[in-house]
Amino acid sequence: MKKEGSFKKIKNKVLIIGGLGFIGSNMIDELLNNEQYEILVFEFSGVTIRNPKIIGKVKIYYGDFTNKNDLEKVFSENLDIFLVIHSLSTTDPAKSNDNMEYDIKSNLISSINLLELMKKYLIPKIYFFSSGGTVYGRNLPKKVKEENEKNPICSYGIIKLTIEKYITLFHQLYGLEYIIFRLSNPYGMYHNSDRQGLINVILKKILKKEIVEIWGDGEIVRDYIYIQDLVKIVSSFIESDIKNEIFNLGSGDGYSINQIIDIITNIVGPFELKYSMKRNFDIKNIVLNNEKIKTYYHYKLTPIHEGIMETYKWLKKMETR
Amino acid sequence: MKKEGSFKKIKNKVLIIGGLGFIGSNMIDELLNNEQYEILVFEFSGVTIRNPKIIGKVKIYYGDFTNKNDLEKVFSENLDIFLVIHSLSTTDPAKSNDNMEYDIKSNLISSINLLELMKKYLIPKIYFFSSGGTVYGRNLPKKVKEENEKNPICSYGIIKLTIEKYITLFHQLYGLEYIIFRLSNPYGMYHNSDRQGLINVILKKILKKEIVEIWGDGEIVRDYIYIQDLVKIVSSFIESDIKNEIFNLGSGDGYSINQIIDIITNIVGPFELKYSMKRNFDIKNIVLNNEKIKTYYHYKLTPIHEGIMETYKWLKKMETR
Repeated sequence: MKKEGSFKKIKNKVLIIGGLGFIGSNMIDELLNNEQYEILVFEFSGVTIRNPKIIGKVKIYYGDFTNKNDLEKVFSENLDIFLVIHSLSTTDPAKSNDNMEYDIKSNLISSINLLELMKKYLIPKIYFFSSGGTVYGRNLPKKVKEENEKNPICSYGIIKLTIEKYITLFHQLYGLEYIIFRLSNPYGMYHNSDRQGLINVILKKILKKEIVEIWGDGEIVRDYIYIQDLVKIVSSFIESDIKNEIFNLGSGDGYSINQIIDIITNIVGPFELKYSMKRNFDIKNIVLNNEKIKTYYHYKLTPIHEGIMETYKWLKKMETR
Repeated sequence: MKKEGSFKKIKNKVLIIGGLGFIGSNMIDELLNNEQYEILVFEFSGVTIRNPKIIGKVKIYYGDFTNKNDLEKVFSENLDIFLVIHSLSTTDPAKSNDNMEYDIKSNLISSINLLELMKKYLIPKIYFFSSGGTVYGRNLPKKVKEENEKNPICSYGIIKLTIEKYITLFHQLYGLEYIIFRLSNPYGMYHNSDRQGLINVILKKILKKEIVEIWGDGEIVRDYIYIQDLVKIVSSFIESDIKNEIFNLGSGDGYSINQIIDIITNIVGPFELKYSMKRNFDIKNIVLNNEKIKTYYHYKLTPIHEGIMETYKWLKKMETR
């Protein structure tokens, strides 16, 4: 509730780059709970709206992320943006090694352009979604900490890491404020990929009565986080004083693919499964140590079976629409 | 001495990218001592030969490092290259922040092209000269180790680090062998920059009777290594089995600018000095811990006053030619 006579913030706009994507769509859902934000979205033209609740409530700029002019239009028309949430990637880990030059040009150079524009238009703060699953790479401890060594085994991870370095460089040189969130594997509603995001991909295949294909023996371990937990945590930082930090953002718990399959089987009953050759860009085990970020919020994460149940319900509703 | 009847190596060519530069010119000097190597150089057209001893002894390909076709010509004509020494940069720390996109395109993407060509032409090994002075960046321990955190404060350092990551990725994906040398500040003969390389720049100014300009109060500490030591150490690795390692390569000793000035004054007598504002991309203190590389070679480094004396003699000889 707004206090009578309280000062209105001069800058109240949040720009979400890639705002119609999986994370972006959920981020908007969460931010719409706070009336004081005006939400802008930059998204590639052709990307459809997955979250019907946002229609009429956010202003969407369609354009090409790799075209600096398209991006500049947003800033020149909105000098009152106080936060950019950068949630766009043109590649995924699996395909990033096939064309590294494309990865560099479309993600790294475009992100540098974004930072240059933020500098030019005096936008004070950026939140960047980096990748906890790929920046650390090989030779990991049981639970990987923010300061552990980084040996990515895909271009996607290298580029995420390099963008992080440029963000901290812009902080050092020009005072840009930032928070970098190294995400584990989010799952949940508004997800829309047939390649990335194990839990959603499996559930969708089950609903389509397709065979579920697992790369490797199913024993690789990952850290999964329910998307609604993720966006609640991220948005809790916006009103805080916390800045210029890098956080792992995951559940801190590891589940093997076979364990995930067991949980799903408990919810939906048995389904058809096929094991294929493992892929060379898959790390064996990765679980994020989330002790650092946990000191900043007091919020109980959704247990994985509940999150998967909710995701399944949402997917089922989508199927029947 | 070659043993009678010993097998001739099928691959005996070393390609030095940036071979007419400061480090490259000294590297060739050293490699010419070993008759079994055939030395190829790739260099930007227009770069002149500083080391007269190499004329007629190495094959030079002139071209544009950012043009993949120019680079491919070298490999397609020399299938018997067993080692690429990558010693080329189109930027320096000071100017890299002015145009980061140029830094990314001309150094990072060109280096990816180089790696792709090495993969295509089955070239087994790369030595990469990275930058001990810039990849670590802020918040350093007294002597920085290879595994310490990396927070570069210039684009130059970020790109060197990112190239390192792609080299280890190519190792992981395709078996490319590598050694990465993170160099401290080399000084000595064949140096030819008026911007980078404190010791040489000061000595040259003194010989030209120009005022020596120091950025800051002269108390920033650096690790200097005599170039002849550096190339001797690097070339000692070529015949060894050591591979797939990252080494700091410096003296392990720190000298402030003012200490360097004292040493130079002892050699050449007093000279005119001016202190200017410090630059925002200069780290306060950086000394490399060289314990790791020291376990691999047994070679006594040249004391700094001797190295500076030799450099001064060489510069003087150049002046009078």
